[in-house]
Amino acid sequence: MSDSAAPPSLFVHRRKIVWADTDPAGIAYTGRFPNFALEAIEAWCADRLGIDWYGMHNTLGGGTPFVHLDMDFRASLRPGDALATTVALRRAGRSSLEFAVTGRLADGTVSFEGKFVCVFVEDATHTSRPIPERFAQAVAREVELAVAGA
Amino acid sequence: MSDSAAPPSLFVHRRKIVWADTDPAGIAYTGRFPNFALEAIEAWCADRLGIDWYGMHNTLGGGTPFVHLDMDFRASLRPGDALATTVALRRAGRSSLEFAVTGRLADGTVSFEGKFVCVFVEDATHTSRPIPERFAQAVAREVELAVAGA
Amino acid sequence: MSDSAAPPSLFVHRRKIVWADTDPAGIAYTGRFPNFALEAIEAWCADRLGIDWYGMHNTLGGGTPFVHLDMDFRASLRPGDALATTVALRRAGRSSLEFAVTGRLADGTVSFEGKFVCVFVEDATHTSRPIPERFAQAVAREVELAVAGA
Amino acid sequence: MSDSAAPPSLFVHRRKIVWADTDPAGIAYTGRFPNFALEAIEAWCADRLGIDWYGMHNTLGGGTPFVHLDMDFRASLRPGDALATTVALRRAGRSSLEFAVTGRLADGTVSFEGKFVCVFVEDATHTSRPIPERFAQAVAREVELAVAGA
Repeated sequence: MSDSAAPPSLFVHRRKIVWADTDPAGIAYTGRFPNFALEAIEAWCADRLGIDWYGMHNTLGGGTPFVHLDMDFRASLRPGDALATTVALRRAGRSSLEFAVTGRLADGTVSFEGKFVCVFVEDATHTSRPIPERFAQAVAREVELAVAGA
Repeated sequence: MSDSAAPPSLFVHRRKIVWADTDPAGIAYTGRFPNFALEAIEAWCADRLGIDWYGMHNTLGGGTPFVHLDMDFRASLRPGDALATTVALRRAGRSSLEFAVTGRLADGTVSFEGKFVCVFVEDATHTSRPIPERFAQAVAREVELAVAGA
Repeated sequence: MSDSAAPPSLFVHRRKIVWADTDPAGIAYTGRFPNFALEAIEAWCADRLGIDWYGMHNTLGGGTPFVHLDMDFRASLRPGDALATTVALRRAGRSSLEFAVTGRLADGTVSFEGKFVCVFVEDATHTSRPIPERFAQAVAREVELAVAGA
Repeated sequence: MSDSAAPPSLFVHRRKIVWADTDPAGIAYTGRFPNFALEAIEAWCADRLGIDWYGMHNTLGGGTPFVHLDMDFRASLRPGDALATTVALRRAGRSSLEFAVTGRLADGTVSFEGKFVCVFVEDATHTSRPIPERFAQAVAREVELAVAGA
C-alpha cells in the first residue's frame, strides 16, 4: 500500500489508445484488449498490494499466472481515445484472485467487460500456494470495495 | 476454399513460440495467448473461407469484429515450443461464428482452450449482417467437422 | 498546437515500463524500444502539430510513413521504470522530418538514443509530397527548439 | 549446428504478415519491422549456432543484448504477404556480432534492410565477454558466407 488509509474507491487505470493498438479497420485490434485489462491489473497490484508482478517474481519466490480470462466487447476504441479501466477484486479464494475489469471511454461508454482469474504459485514446486499473509488485509479491503461497487 | 474437395479435418495453425512472446517468468505472457488464438482463426478464414480478414475488409464492405472471447490456461509455453492450435467452428448463427480453439504442445499437452465469437458487420451501417451467402457452404461443412470432432 | 504560445521546451513523452514489455532476461525486449520511440513521436505530432497520425490518415489524404530508423542502446529498462522520451525535430526537408529521440530513466540515465525519419506521402499517388503548409510554422519552431537543444 | 555439414547458403527466415501486424493505413506498422528482423536473428541463432536466446539465457550464464539497430524501409507489407528475411553475419568482433538483415517479398522486392549489433554479456558481471569458444567455428563460417554474399 502506498499509504495506510483505505483507498477511497476502486482502482482505475488510464491509458491512451495509440496508432500501434489499431488495425486496418481503424479500431483497436481484438488482441490488444486483453493487454489493456492485464496492464490495469498489473497496475492494481502495484497500487493496492504495494508490489508489482516484477517485484513478486523477484522477491516472493513465485508469481500469479492467469488460469482464466473472458471478455465481452461493447464499443470499439480508436487512436486518441482515453481508456479508463476499473479493476475490482470480485473474489479471493485460498490461492486465487478473480478480477472484474471494465473499460470505459471518456464519456462513460463501456468498451469492454472482463473477468480475469490468477493463482499464486510457488516457483520451486510449480504448484499453487495460499495468498501470502502480507496481502490478506489489502485483499479483504479490495473485495469489500468491489462488493460495495465503489 | 483452396480446392473443391472437403477438408479432411479441422484446421490446425502452427507457430513457434519466440523470445518476444515471453516474460520475466520465462514463459509466454498471458496477453500473448489471445493473439495466438486470433492468428489461428485468421488463418482458418484464409484457408476455409478462402479470404482473410484483410480481404474481407477491402472487398466485402465489412469485417468480423469479435464480441466475446474466453480462455482457460492449462500449461505454459516457452521459447522454441511448437504450438499447434486447432480451430473448430462450433456454431454459426445468423450473423455470428463461434470458434472453439485448442492450443497443444508437440507432445499433445493442452496449453489452452478458448471460445471466440465474431459477428459479420457492415461498415456502412456499423450493424450486424447475415453471414454472406458465399460462405454458407464452407460454414456448414466446418460446423459439421467441428461436431464430428474431426 | 494546443495554444498559440510557443512551447517552452522540447516535447517529452512519459510512460511506465510494464511486465508485457520485458523478456526472460527481466529487461525490456529490444523489439519494444522502437515502439517506445514511435509512441513518443506520435504524441509529439498530436501536441506540436495539433493532429495525430490517425487524424492525418483520416483528414489529410495521406500519412507520414517512416523510411529510416536507428537506435543505440545505453541502459536497460525494467518493469516499473519511468521512461521519459524527449523528441527533437532535428531537421525538416521538403517532405521529410528527422527526429532525434532520447529515452531517459528517472535519474537522468540515458537508456537509448535514436534517429527516426518519416516522409509525408499522398495516399492517392503513393508518392511523397511537400510538408503541408498548415504545419510550416510549427515545424520551423520545433527545428529551432531542437537546435537550441532546449 | 544441427549437423556437421556447412550450411549451403545464408539463413532465411519466413513468416506471413498478419492482420495484427498492420495499422489503419492497411500496412505493417513501423514498430513491427524491428521485430521481424529480430525474430529472424533469433531463428538464425537456433539454426546456425545450435542454441536460441532462451537456451543461452538458461545455460550460458548470459545473453546477447543488442546495442545498435538501424533499418531502411523500401516497400510496405500487407496482411498475407510472405516475408523472407535473410540474415548475414557481416562481422564478428571480440564480443560482438553484426548482422545484415534483408526482408524481401515473394517477388524479390526488398521491403527493408537493416543492421543489428549484439554483444555477448555475462549475467554475473553485466559486462561484455568474448564470443564463447563453442561458437567460434560457426561464427567464422557464417562471416565467410556473408562475405561471399551466398
